[in-house]
Parts: sequence; C-alpha cells; structure tokens
Amino acid sequence: MSRTEDVAHMKWWGWGVDGVGFDHRDKPALAPFVMAKIGLDLNTRGRPPLPFDKLDVPPSRAPAELLETLGKAIGEEHVHTDDLERVVHTYGKSLRDLLRVRSGVLPRVPDVVVYPLDEEQVRAIVDEVVMADAVVIAFGGGSNIVGSLEPERDETRPIVSIDLGRLDRVLSIDDDAGLARIQAGAQGPSIEEQLGERGWTLGHFPDSFTHSTLGGWIATRSSGMQSDKYGDIADITRAVRVVMPGRVLATRAVPSTSTGPSVREMVLGSEGRLGVITEATVQVHRTPAERVILGYLFPSWEQGVAAMQAISASDSAPSVTRVSDARETAFSFATRKKSRGLSSLVSKAMQTVLSRRGWDLSSTCLSFIGFEGGEGHVARQKAEVKSIVHEHGGIVIGRGPGVLYDQKKFDTPYIRDYLLDRGAVADVSETSAAWSELLPLYRHTITEAGRAFDSIGVEGWVMCHLSHSYHSGACLYFTFAFRHGGDPVDQYDVVKAAIQQSFVDRAGTLSHHHAVGVEHARWLAQDISAAGADLVAGLFSAADPGRHFNPGKIVR
Amino acid sequence: MSRTEDVAHMKWWGWGVDGVGFDHRDKPALAPFVMAKIGLDLNTRGRPPLPFDKLDVPPSRAPAELLETLGKAIGEEHVHTDDLERVVHTYGKSLRDLLRVRSGVLPRVPDVVVYPLDEEQVRAIVDEVVMADAVVIAFGGGSNIVGSLEPERDETRPIVSIDLGRLDRVLSIDDDAGLARIQAGAQGPSIEEQLGERGWTLGHFPDSFTHSTLGGWIATRSSGMQSDKYGDIADITRAVRVVMPGRVLATRAVPSTSTGPSVREMVLGSEGRLGVITEATVQVHRTPAERVILGYLFPSWEQGVAAMQAISASDSAPSVTRVSDARETAFSFATRKKSRGLSSLVSKAMQTVLSRRGWDLSSTCLSFIGFEGGEGHVARQKAEVKSIVHEHGGIVIGRGPGVLYDQKKFDTPYIRDYLLDRGAVADVSETSAAWSELLPLYRHTITEAGRAFDSIGVEGWVMCHLSHSYHSGACLYFTFAFRHGGDPVDQYDVVKAAIQQSFVDRAGTLSHHHAVGVEHARWLAQDISAAGADLVAGLFSAADPGRHFNPGKIVR
Repeated sequence: MSRTEDVAHMKWWGWGVDGVGFDHRDKPALAPFVMAKIGLDLNTRGRPPLPFDKLDVPPSRAPAELLETLGKAIGEEHVHTDDLERVVHTYGKSLRDLLRVRSGVLPRVPDVVVYPLDEEQVRAIVDEVVMADAVVIAFGGGSNIVGSLEPERDETRPIVSIDLGRLDRVLSIDDDAGLARIQAGAQGPSIEEQLGERGWTLGHFPDSFTHSTLGGWIATRSSGMQSDKYGDIADITRAVRVVMPGRVLATRAVPSTSTGPSVREMVLGSEGRLGVITEATVQVHRTPAERVILGYLFPSWEQGVAAMQAISASDSAPSVTRVSDARETAFSFATRKKSRGLSSLVSKAMQTVLSRRGWDLSSTCLSFIGFEGGEGHVARQKAEVKSIVHEHGGIVIGRGPGVLYDQKKFDTPYIRDYLLDRGAVADVSETSAAWSELLPLYRHTITEAGRAFDSIGVEGWVMCHLSHSYHSGACLYFTFAFRHGGDPVDQYDVVKAAIQQSFVDRAGTLSHHHAVGVEHARWLAQDISAAGADLVAGLFSAADPGRHFNPGKIVR
Repeated sequence: MSRTEDVAHMKWWGWGVDGVGFDHRDKPALAPFVMAKIGLDLNTRGRPPLPFDKLDVPPSRAPAELLETLGKAIGEEHVHTDDLERVVHTYGKSLRDLLRVRSGVLPRVPDVVVYPLDEEQVRAIVDEVVMADAVVIAFGGGSNIVGSLEPERDETRPIVSIDLGRLDRVLSIDDDAGLARIQAGAQGPSIEEQLGERGWTLGHFPDSFTHSTLGGWIATRSSGMQSDKYGDIADITRAVRVVMPGRVLATRAVPSTSTGPSVREMVLGSEGRLGVITEATVQVHRTPAERVILGYLFPSWEQGVAAMQAISASDSAPSVTRVSDARETAFSFATRKKSRGLSSLVSKAMQTVLSRRGWDLSSTCLSFIGFEGGEGHVARQKAEVKSIVHEHGGIVIGRGPGVLYDQKKFDTPYIRDYLLDRGAVADVSETSAAWSELLPLYRHTITEAGRAFDSIGVEGWVMCHLSHSYHSGACLYFTFAFRHGGDPVDQYDVVKAAIQQSFVDRAGTLSHHHAVGVEHARWLAQDISAAGADLVAGLFSAADPGRHFNPGKIVR
C-alpha cells in the first residue's frame, strides 16, 4: 500500500469502521433479556461519545529536528502530527481505553505518527528515534485490549507511533514448503485474500480478525478460532524479522530447532519491547476441500466440557471445539434475528423428546465443532465426534446454526460500544487451564464475579464458553456486563480484577490469547513466578537498556 | 532413588553400560562393507582406551569449607571428590569428548560431584555454591554430544557438578488432564516404566533414550523418534521448575498462554545457564491400542523424501516418518545379522518385478513409518500412507523390518566406540530445513563432506536419513566416518565443520535436536543472526551476572 491515507483505522472512539454498528431492534428477544439480566433498557436513547473537536488533545512535543529527519527518511507526507492521527494511535480498544477516549482522558498521546513503506524505512525511523532519545510504539490494527499501545503517562521524551499499515503485503509464498513471507502490517482479511488467490489459507481467525495484523498477533501471542487445527500464532510463525537499533534480528524458517532458548519465542508476546516486527514467515495450508461447522446441544455445561475433553483425547482432530455455558447459550438465543429461541434450532417434536429425556431446556448448552480436510476425512471426523457427543448426552443440531455462527463470528465487539452508549460496560477475560482444573476454575470465577457485582452494588451478568481445546486443557472465555453507577472505570476494575484473580488463584494463566500489556501486568508474577517475571524483565533490559521500545509493557 | 551408588552412569570412556558393546562378527556383510567404504579392516585387533589408572586426573580444587557445607546440606555420603566420579562428570559423549577422555586429555574436571535427593537439596547446593563464588554444572545422563557439560578450561573458581540421578521419580500423574510431574533426573526407561505401570506413555524416544534424562531433554530441546505424533520436548513440556539463587522459577502447566515472551521456552534449550532444572510437568498419553512400524522401499531418495512430504501434507498423521538415502540403506543391509542384504527383505520374485519396473536395486532407499491409535484409525492411516507411497513409486515391505528397526533403534552409538578402538572416527550432524530447501541442502552437504575428506586425505563415508517431518519441512540426520591418519581431533574438526557450514549456508539450522553447547556455538549467529545471539547472551547475563551456571555454553 503506497499511500498513507489508504491505511484503514477503526473509529477513534470504538470498535470497527465508521457506519457499521450494532442495533438491537432486529433482535426482538434481546431488549427483554438485557433488562432482565442487568436492568438496562436498550430502548433508551444512547449517549454517544464526545465529538472529536471537544477533546482536549495535548499538543505534539515532537522536536522540529526529529520531524525533519523523519520526513527526510520516509517522506513528509508520511509523517503526521495532527490531533486525530495522534488520538487514533493513543489507545487500543480495551474497555478502559474506550471509557477514557470517549470522555477525553488523554494524559499522554504520541507526538508523531509515521507510516513507513518497508523494513528499510522502519530501520531508518528506529535509528533516528534512538539517536534522538525518543520512544517508539509500534501500531498494527489497534485492536489490543490489554493496554499494550498506550504511552506511559509520565514519559517526557518524544513518542513516535510507527503505524505499519503500509507494510501489508504477502511478499512470497513457498508453494513447496507451505510457507509465506508476510509483512507485519497486513490485516486479517487482506492476508486471507492475498493467500486465497493462490489457493492458500493462514487459518488464523481471532475475534479481532477484521481489524488486527500479523505483527500484532505475533506481538501478543494470539490464537484464532480454528487454532485447534492450525495452531496458535506461536505455532504458525516459523520465522520473524525485528528491527532493532542499527540492525535486524532475523531467524530462519526452519520447522524445528534446538538452537538455544528460542529467539523466535522471545519475539512472540514481546509487545514491541524488543524492537519493531516487520515481517514473519508463517505456515500456510491449502484451502481444504471441505469445511463445515456443525451445531450441537448438551443438557449441561459439565457434559459439554467433558465431550470437548473426550474429543481432544480421541483420534479425531476438529478445527473448532467450542461450547457455551447455559448463560451464554441463553444470550446467543436472545441475539438471534426474529428469534424464537430454542425453537428455531430444535423442532417442537425434538423439544418434547428432550424434555422426556430429562433435559432442562432452559439450561441447555450450545456447541460448535468445525471440521476441515478431504471429504472422507471430514465424514469420518464428524461421525467420530457425533458418537462422542452422544456418549455425553448431547445431540447434533446440524449445519444451519454453524453457518450462522460462522457468519456472525466477528461482530460481537460492536455490542460493547452500543452498551457503552447506554451506560453499561461489557468486557471479556480469558484463561487456559488443565482439564482437571477447568470446572473448579469456572465455578470459582462465576462466584467471584458475582461477589464483585454485589460489592459495587450492580446487577451483573457473566457468561462463558470453552473456545480452544488442547491435549492437556482448554481455554475458557468469559464475558461480563453491568449497568454502571458512579465511575465506570473504578467499577470495571473491581469486576475485572476479581475475575483475573480467580484465574491465577485457580491454576489458570492470566490470559490465553490477549497478552499482558499493562492491564494484566499485576498478575504476571502470580502466573509465571517472580523469578519468571524477572527473567522477562532481564531480557528486555538487556535488549533495550535505553527503554526506547514501548517501555512499561508486560513488566516495568 | 535414595542411594548415590545406585545412580547408573555410562562407561567413563564410551557409550552405554559396562559389558555391553558392539561386535561385527555376527554381521557377516559389515567388515567387507567397511573395508570397501573407508578402508578399515574391522578384523584388526582394537586398541582400547587408556586404563583409568593411567589417566592424569587433576586434583580437586574444592575448598574444604565448601565440601563441609555441601556435606551438611545433603549428607557427606552424597558428596564425592574421587577421580572416577569427577572424570565421569567431565564430558558428555561427543566424538571430541571420547577422543579426549580416552587419551587422558583432562585440562579441567569438576572439583566435586554432589547427588542431591530433591529440589530442596538442589536449592541448598545452589545457594552454597553462589555464596562460595563457585560454578554449577548440572548433569543428567551425560549423553550430550555438543560439549554442554564440560567445564571451561580456564575456570579458576571451584566447579560443582550436580548429578540429578537421585531425582528420578514420576511424582504424580493427573489422569484427567494427561499431565505428569516428573523429576528432572529420571532417565528414559525409568520414566516409561513408571508411567507404563499406570497405562501412560510420554512418547519421547531420542536415540539416547536409555541413558538420557528429562532435564537433559529440556535443557537441549530434544526430539524423539515418535515426535511426529507426540511433539518435540518443547511441545511436550508444559511447565518447568528451575532452581535459581535464593528461589525457584516455576511456570504453570497450562495448555497455552499469551503471557509475554514464554519463560517456559527460555528454559527449553538453556543448557544449564539459567539455573538447575529440577522438575517438569509433561504431557502423557494413554498407551495406544495399536502401535505398528512398517518398512517401505523407494526406488530413489528423491522419491522417498517426496513421499514423506506428501504424507505431511495429507490428512494422515503417522507417529514416525523416516527414510534413508541409498548409502544409509546399504549400511543398514550390511549390519543385518546373517545378512542376505536386500533378499532378506524382498523376495527374489519381487526383486525381479522391481528390476523390470526399472529399479536400480543397489540404490533403493529404506523407509520406516509408524502408526499409533485406535484400531480403525491405524488401519485407515496405513491405507492412506500406502497409497501415497505407491504414488511415489515405493512399495510396502511390511512389519518384519519395522520390528527389527524398533528393537535395534537405540544400539547405534555403540558402533562409534568399536570404530574408535580400531582407528576410525564416526559421528553425526543433524539439521532441519523447509521442504523446498531439503534436497539442495542434502546434495551440498554430501559434496562438502566429500571435499573435506579429500582435503585431509582420507577415504570417508557420509550417509543420511530424514528423521522427522513437520508441516513445513523435515530433519535430515547425517552420519559420517573415516579412518583417521594424524591427529583425529583435527581431522574430525575439518569434516564436522564442513557439514555444519553447509547446513547454515543452505537455509538449515545448526542442529535440529542436539543443541548448541560449545561444539556448535560458532555457527549460532549465522543461524539466528547476530542480534538473535546477542538476545540469548543478554538473557543469560541478566539472569546470571556472576556466571555461576554452566558459563560459556551456547554463547560466551
């Protein structure tokens, strides 16, 4: 992409692109559901964020000399100091970010935003920034929700945001090895389009897919909806290139190596603290002959989770394993267009049969399982999974719900803005744990979220799904919401902290795929031990003693 | 294991346990083969290593005070300073190690060998050693072949070898999650025995299996023969415990996490430079219902490799994918007991058919492919692989050769000592590369090995097999041998260096599963770039500024 103005950004105040948003009015069951669960009337008129011109944006502190050298390095038209550019690059899209930006809380914004064209220009920028004793924050799609993008409030040096949006190309595909060299700033849809033209797929579909980048996925150790098959980004990424002062760190695209502690793995999850990721070589797969996602129902959450575990221990290997608890299932039913709830999924006759079997139809759990591969392979996998589902009391409800899930899967984040407009906060927290720890962790987290709601005096809602299965455990993905009274940031903190604390108290990790940033940093030592946190800090100090690269993230 | 004297060690001068060795006399085709290829007469009487009492072992420099504190910490009977103990803990089993120890080259040996019982005792030892400004080298099975165990020649501080042989227990098995907590000093057979009693397997079978430990596998990023199914040790290891001064680094056994750069991955491949690994939580699998290894023949190496690649891209997932080049196939035939060469594998009638099909029977390539899982699963996989093998011109030769391979798979290292006794050196070098790079790398390496043999004026032999397949590439495992004239170490260096240089010149890594140590350190920056090597060095400096933990390995 040669023009800076072609780089797409999300709304400065919310998720997604201008003109696209959520509306509850075509989902008749939603307003009553939200009223019942958190006491919020969706039909009240929303209060939008402040208009941009009402924001009090601190002026750029970039020295003229730095702007001049940057302009010389990459062209003046790619160096920006206007307020909108700087505000767009101040935050990611965490609940805390949205609350702050919507109300004009901008203690420190980047002083200049630059749009390099290629790795050479990134090198030039990095060298100039270090010479000027400034700070670099790399910016991909801006979808981060753990505070990895925000400048430190008390940073006195100039802050340069490097937007990698112009580095958006699939540079080459090695058809023989199934490897593609892709620039770090390429966003999900563009990657799949460029690969798809040549019959390949990356197979990486995080919730943020439409607005996140390869470099961002690597910097935060992302996972996608089909990671059960394709692997997490840490598995997919075979080699990285990272611009450091005066040089480029480059590892080789080898399938496996015993070369010391893995430098590739040091870059994965480094959140911009080691340098600027410019390129990666990633595994790509031939577009599968067949791809299908089927819907299933289980009589209980426990049975649904047990089925996912049994599938992970079997010889079958689905691309997606997902099951929602009864609360999330109820929410899903409530968000269906012209919903008739359960009856749109299961016929009246079937409902009668299920009731006779003892199902409590108000607490069923919805599941989606995906299959990819050759025709025979998919058929066998489906059959094997079906028999495991039956063994765990579940039923197949077929392709229709799966297609619907597949179509809607990237839309969820829009709801958050809609709720924010109406005085309610909603957010997510996810973890992973061993199968043996999963249900106790789940129950404890639901309890602790409830306590937190009580302690701040709100009607709260928390729901969960299992989103990824592994040999030894799974990811649990919680969503919570409440109508705030008082300071929403303070109230949010109470609930978010209760959930995170429950994770680390009950053998979970602080985040399965959203990284550490500043949001999760206080739980780091509880997750990987104090010695582990010091090892990470030592790595960063050794690589960047001058603290030029996104200082303050993960560890101070 | 409570008694130090029960900890088994290999021969001080060679591979394996006393009384077990290689003999060519029951393999009638081997002597003519070796004579033809490297001009060595196996029937000449071997010249064994120096007797132990002829070695000039430097005296222990351990201060009396340190010995006393160590004795107090773990019991005097577990603290040893006698010559045999110290020599056994000086080297691993690389060719260079064997050449040196056999001829009494011992510039620096550990000053004291300690056998702690548990992590608590390891902590006590580490703290005492750091207080005394001494050096710690952790010792597992002693099978390392890249110099990871040897003390630095010019180390003036006392050197303490911590032998982890008494930490040999499977501490617990989480039957629900398929996770086992195992102490770092447990050796392969003991691990499989303890797990097997409860119906589990680790599935990690490196060539060194009978004499290597879990801690050693982790410290060197080991791979096993069935890693295609079970994963490399980096995949298998879900959590680690590492004793550092005054504390323990402990990560959680979560299936996946986005918690910053992975501390677990920093420990994997760290070769004792971060601390002493005492325990890991590893994935274990139910002993499969069916397990079979089949033999295959291909008309050429290129076709064999192409078949392995096609298998890796298919929906099937064998546990073992291995194919030897024509040279290694010829060697395999020559080492068969009462060998009739190819005719013991393929009937006369079949040979006639193959000849008519245009096969050159002197350059066929032997392959082994393994299958594990439920009965139906194994049957389908076998059928799918069979059809891929046929598409690539190969044939199935069945279960017999696979059983033989399975029985003999850990015996190869014994041959090296036998050859050394008779004036010939033999060693291995392995790499991994993308599928697209594999055959050019192979040809270049064979050429470069040939040049190296010529340059030192010897008749040399080099052969290769593909030992592991991944989505994007494979591991190539080279074995080389020659009858040395002049200084064997110098001549070995010329050949070893030519092969390693070929790896990094042709897009390979310096080692797929033998680690860096000191043997491969000079190629590190060529593999992971200078910036990558500095990142590793920075990590070690930050974690161990006093250079107490196995200094000098991987990077200076």
